[in-house]
Amino acid sequence: MSDATTPVAALKDGIRRFAAARGWEPYHTPKNLVLALASEVGELCEVFRWLTAEESRAAPADPRLREAIADELADVANIVLLLSIHTGIDLADAVRVKMAKNELKYPAPPG
Amino acid sequence: MSDATTPVAALKDGIRRFAAARGWEPYHTPKNLVLALASEVGELCEVFRWLTAEESRAAPADPRLREAIADELADVANIVLLLSIHTGIDLADAVRVKMAKNELKYPAPPG
Amino acid sequence: MSDATTPVAALKDGIRRFAAARGWEPYHTPKNLVLALASEVGELCEVFRWLTAEESRAAPADPRLREAIADELADVANIVLLLSIHTGIDLADAVRVKMAKNELKYPAPPG
Amino acid sequence: MSDATTPVAALKDGIRRFAAARGWEPYHTPKNLVLALASEVGELCEVFRWLTAEESRAAPADPRLREAIADELADVANIVLLLSIHTGIDLADAVRVKMAKNELKYPAPPG
Repeated sequence: MSDATTPVAALKDGIRRFAAARGWEPYHTPKNLVLALASEVGELCEVFRWLTAEESRAAPADPRLREAIADELADVANIVLLLSIHTGIDLADAVRVKMAKNELKYPAPPG
Repeated sequence: MSDATTPVAALKDGIRRFAAARGWEPYHTPKNLVLALASEVGELCEVFRWLTAEESRAAPADPRLREAIADELADVANIVLLLSIHTGIDLADAVRVKMAKNELKYPAPPG
Repeated sequence: MSDATTPVAALKDGIRRFAAARGWEPYHTPKNLVLALASEVGELCEVFRWLTAEESRAAPADPRLREAIADELADVANIVLLLSIHTGIDLADAVRVKMAKNELKYPAPPG
Repeated sequence: MSDATTPVAALKDGIRRFAAARGWEPYHTPKNLVLALASEVGELCEVFRWLTAEESRAAPADPRLREAIADELADVANIVLLLSIHTGIDLADAVRVKMAKNELKYPAPPG
């Protein structure tokens, strides 16, 4: 299971089943999920707050820091996927649409 | 292009090319990206802060709110994908590993 | 009006009157205020996300950046004061109590 | 020590001494402090994420929740005060200036 071979929808299916097996759906309003997202992002901020730019670049090469970052990044991704599930907004489509808007807002310099 | 057919890596490729065409990579240290993530999550919080739980559930059915949420969710997803690129942490793998930890932490009740 | 001469309660009184004159109190549940706080902190993050450590230290000397930081810091302070009002938690007391806990958690090295 | 009798500057003095006694000032760049602020706000979000609006209103009456909220609110206030110290932006002045801007942006309805 890797980003190369895993469709976004496969991740969403796993997370949907996990929450359903525990009866958590009633808590997963978009508003609650947005608060949960800010909470998980806060934990990622905690890892990096006192690191220099260089230390933050080197962090993924340190096994203990790498595990902490992967853990918190997974928690953030989980909530993003739950928001996609509970708003019915397709992430791949939203990213594509937003990138098209950003192409106009930030035109690439001639290559 | 939809979550059903788009591997996570395809989204990452699009975002990597977008940033490279603009020479943005030097800014994309993990530390800076985490700050950018907190900034984008703040915009999602802004959409929901005064809505009731019910209004937040209904929000995706309102075309104007749906576009705002999709826009901000895409911005958040973009930064999560950039963090995966610049830390070398595979998102599908990190989500799978974290879900296995959570299976132990929050065992599902017997079905 | 400055930090030297302004009791915390005087700031709270001004903010309470501002919200009351606009009929905003019903929106100011602790939960909504916490979401608003994450939103305002996101705007502060936006100012600093691509700055180096040195640029962030120099930022308050740049008039345009100084005004942006003061604006966003005031928005954050406003929500912190509203949370104090609507939870009945005295900020000066909470800060004193927390600092006493932190004295034990992070003992100062011998002077 | 209460909000009624404590000038903002007195809180700042206590926090400045606490950090100085531990040699923490070199870490307290505005950029690092903004990341620390997002981290502390995330902990406040964690307390409220699954509570209903009513439960969030009732939370300060529950001794265990009240202590958790006071702890996290103090941590947030600490970082706001450190940002004031390290940017040289007077909080009382910034709040007053911002409220004057907001008076124009959101005029009060006739009383």
